[in-house]
Amino acid sequence: MRKIGIGIAGLGTIGLGVYKHLEGNRRLLTERLGLELTVTKIADLDPERPRTPMPPRELFTNDWHDLINDPEVQVVVELMGGIKVPYDFVTAALEKGKIVVTANKALLAERGKEIFALAAEKRVPVFYEAAAAGGVPIIKALKEAFVANHIRSMHGIINGTSNYILTRMSQAGLSFDAALKEAQAAGYAEADPTLDINGWDAAHKAIILASLAYGFWVDTNDIHVEGIQNITAADIEFAEKLGYKIKLLGVVKADEACVENCKVEVRVHPTLIPKDHVLASVNGVFNAVAVNGDVVGETLFYGRGAGQDATASAVISDIAEAAVALEIPRPNFGFVPHGLYAGCKPIDEVITPYYLRLAVVDRPGVLALITGILSEEQIGISSVIQPESSEEQTVPLVLMLHSAAQGRMNRAAEKIAALDCVKCPPQVLRVETFA
Amino acid sequence: MRKIGIGIAGLGTIGLGVYKHLEGNRRLLTERLGLELTVTKIADLDPERPRTPMPPRELFTNDWHDLINDPEVQVVVELMGGIKVPYDFVTAALEKGKIVVTANKALLAERGKEIFALAAEKRVPVFYEAAAAGGVPIIKALKEAFVANHIRSMHGIINGTSNYILTRMSQAGLSFDAALKEAQAAGYAEADPTLDINGWDAAHKAIILASLAYGFWVDTNDIHVEGIQNITAADIEFAEKLGYKIKLLGVVKADEACVENCKVEVRVHPTLIPKDHVLASVNGVFNAVAVNGDVVGETLFYGRGAGQDATASAVISDIAEAAVALEIPRPNFGFVPHGLYAGCKPIDEVITPYYLRLAVVDRPGVLALITGILSEEQIGISSVIQPESSEEQTVPLVLMLHSAAQGRMNRAAEKIAALDCVKCPPQVLRVETFA
Repeated sequence: MRKIGIGIAGLGTIGLGVYKHLEGNRRLLTERLGLELTVTKIADLDPERPRTPMPPRELFTNDWHDLINDPEVQVVVELMGGIKVPYDFVTAALEKGKIVVTANKALLAERGKEIFALAAEKRVPVFYEAAAAGGVPIIKALKEAFVANHIRSMHGIINGTSNYILTRMSQAGLSFDAALKEAQAAGYAEADPTLDINGWDAAHKAIILASLAYGFWVDTNDIHVEGIQNITAADIEFAEKLGYKIKLLGVVKADEACVENCKVEVRVHPTLIPKDHVLASVNGVFNAVAVNGDVVGETLFYGRGAGQDATASAVISDIAEAAVALEIPRPNFGFVPHGLYAGCKPIDEVITPYYLRLAVVDRPGVLALITGILSEEQIGISSVIQPESSEEQTVPLVLMLHSAAQGRMNRAAEKIAALDCVKCPPQVLRVETFA
Repeated sequence: MRKIGIGIAGLGTIGLGVYKHLEGNRRLLTERLGLELTVTKIADLDPERPRTPMPPRELFTNDWHDLINDPEVQVVVELMGGIKVPYDFVTAALEKGKIVVTANKALLAERGKEIFALAAEKRVPVFYEAAAAGGVPIIKALKEAFVANHIRSMHGIINGTSNYILTRMSQAGLSFDAALKEAQAAGYAEADPTLDINGWDAAHKAIILASLAYGFWVDTNDIHVEGIQNITAADIEFAEKLGYKIKLLGVVKADEACVENCKVEVRVHPTLIPKDHVLASVNGVFNAVAVNGDVVGETLFYGRGAGQDATASAVISDIAEAAVALEIPRPNFGFVPHGLYAGCKPIDEVITPYYLRLAVVDRPGVLALITGILSEEQIGISSVIQPESSEEQTVPLVLMLHSAAQGRMNRAAEKIAALDCVKCPPQVLRVETFA
C-alpha cells in the first residue's frame, strides 16, 4: 500500500481537526483511496500545548522549513493563518515541488495571482477547497462540475458569523451589539470580529469564487465591500414588512448576456432578498452558495462554512486529491487564467434596486423634497412606508426604489443627506430580486 | 493543443444537448481544460432526423460497434436508454480500453456491480455524474468531496416528475390524475410515466448513491420502493394541517452509530417531512439531496435533476474528467468496493414514525378498536384528527404514530384493515423527522 507523507503547518483548531479525522476515519480513507495518508511532520510554535487527540511529540518541529526540507513530506497543508508567513511557506513548498493544500482565504485573495503563476510554472498544484464555504464543495463544483458553463451569477451567504448575527436580529429582535455579544459567547465570533462583520472575510471568498468562474484573478481593489455593522433592528423589521430578509451576500454576476468579453460584478454587502427565496432560509452559521450556469441553470450548495470538523472534511478531500495528483501530469494547477472575460465592472455602474431608510422631521412637504431629488436622478419609487407620526421629533421614512446605477444612487443619497429635514445619514441597502 | 475524440452513442434529447453545449461553449472549455473535446463519431439509429444543431452527416453511423472500433474515439458517451444494448456497448468499450461516460441510472442500478468489476479489471474508468440528480454534482461530492466522511444519511428528492406532481397537488389542490396530466402536457412526464411515479427511477438513483457511500453495490432486491400513485388530495391536506409536506424521498441511512459494520437502509417512498425543513421547499421539477456526514455535518445540494441542458452539463463534466483520466493511472475506476459496512437492513426492521389515514364508519367505539390494535403492537399515538361527522357513511380518521418497526406497523395495518368498521385499505405513510 502506497503511503503519502503529509506535513501540517499550524496545528490550531483546523489543523487538529485534520489530524483527528485522518486518524479517526483512517480505515475508511484507506479503503476508498487505495493508499494511506500519514501525517509525518507537524510545524507549530507551541508543540507542548495540550491537545485532543495529542499527536506523538516526535512529529513536531517549530520551524516550517523542516516540512519543506523533509523528503518524506510529499504534501504540505498550510493552516497557519495570516498572510506573510503562509506566503513564504507556500511559495517555498512549490519551489521544492511539494503539492500545497491551504484553507487560507486571505492569502489566496491577496496573493493568489502570484501563487498560481508559480504553481503553473513549477507544475505543482495548489488545492484550496476549504478556503471558501468550509465543508461545502463549491470550489470543486466550479473547477470541475460546472466546467461546461458560463457562470451567469453566484449569490453566497459565505460568512457564518454575520449570518448568525443577522439571524438572531431577525428571529429574536436583538440589536446588532446584543447579537454580536451572543455570537462571541457561543464561539461563533472571535474576540476581534472585524473581518467577519466588515465584510472582508466574505470578500476574500467572493474573490476566489469569482476568479475561478471567470478566469482572471480578481483584484481586491476592484470589488465593493460593505459589512453589517450599520444594520439596525429597524432595518430588519422594515425589510420583514416589505417581504424581505437582510443577508450579507457575496454577489458575483456577469453582464446580462453572459457572453465572452463581458464584465463581472464582484460585491459583498448586506442585501434585501425576497423571503421566499431559498437563501432567505439559510440561518445561523450555515453557508450557502447559489450558482446559476448557462447550461446547468440554477443550483445551490449548502452546509457548514466554518468550524473544526466541516473545514477538516474539505482539507482532507484536498489531501486525497493531492495524493492522486502526485502520480499524474495534471493540466490544472489550481487556477487556469484566460482572457475570455473583460475584468470587473466599476461599482458605480452596477445596477440594483434599493431600500432607503431615512430619519426625517415630521412635517408636510418632506416626502415631496425627497421624491423630487430621486426624480432628478431618474430613480423610480416602488413603495413608501411612513409609520404614523409619534411624539418623536424625527420619524422613519422607508422607500423601495427601482433599479438604478450605484453612481446615481450615491448622488441622490448625498443630496438627500444635505436636506435640513433629514436628520441622520441615509441608510442605503441593495435589493436582490434574482429575476 | 491535444484533441480528445469523443463518440456519442444515442443522439436523443440528452445526446443532442451534449453535442450542442460542447460546440456552444467550445472556447470556454478549451481555455479551462487546455485541451479540445471533439465529437468524432455519433451512433444513432435515425441519423436523418432533423435536429438543432445538426451535426455533420459524416459523423453518423447506425452501428455502435463503429465507435468501439474507431481508434480516434477515446471516450465513449452512452446515452442510448434501456439496459441490454447499453450493457453490451459499455462492456465492449471497457474491453477495448475506452473510457466510458454514461447517464444511464437503470443500467448502473441493475448491472453496476459487473460493470465496475470489469472497469477495475481493465483499469478503465466509468464516469456517471448525470446518472443521479442530473446537473447536481452529487456523485462527485460523494466520491471526492466527502471522502473523509462516514455518511450518516442521505435524503433525496431525486425524481422531478413525482415532485412536480406532488407540488401541484399541494399548491393547486389538484388530484393525482389531474396533476399527472398537467405534468405530461408540460413535458415533465413521459407518455408512459410508470418508472417515475412508481418510485423506481428514484430507486435507481438511490441505489447508486448508497453504493458509492457504503462501498458495496446495493442489490435491487434489498431495497424498499413505493411510488406516489396512491397519494390523494386528502393526504396532502391532512399532512399540511399537521405541519408536513409529502415528498417522494429516497432515504439512505446508516445504523444510528454510523460505525463500520453497520447496516444500511435504502428505501424510496412518499414521506411526510416537516414544513420548515429545507427539503420541503424544493418544488416543481427541482431535485435536492441532503447529505449528512460524520465530519462535514449537514449539507444540501440543489438543482435541476433532468432535462437536456442540466444533464448535458453533468455529462460534459464527466467527459472533461475522462480526458484527464486518459493520461493518468487513476486508482478509482468509478466505484471502489470494500467491506466496511454490513449490507442492507431488511425493511421490516426499519423504524420510523407513521401517518395512518383510515376511512371508518362514523359510530362510537371505532377509535377504541383501532387504538387497541395499535396498543397490542406497542405503537404509540402522537395525535388524532377526526373531522366532524357529516352525512357520509364513512369519515376519515387520521392518526400520527410514534416510531415503530415496519414489521409491527404492517401487522397492525392488516388487523385494522380487517375490522368491519374500516372501509378502505389503510393509507400508511412514513414520517421523516431528521432528528
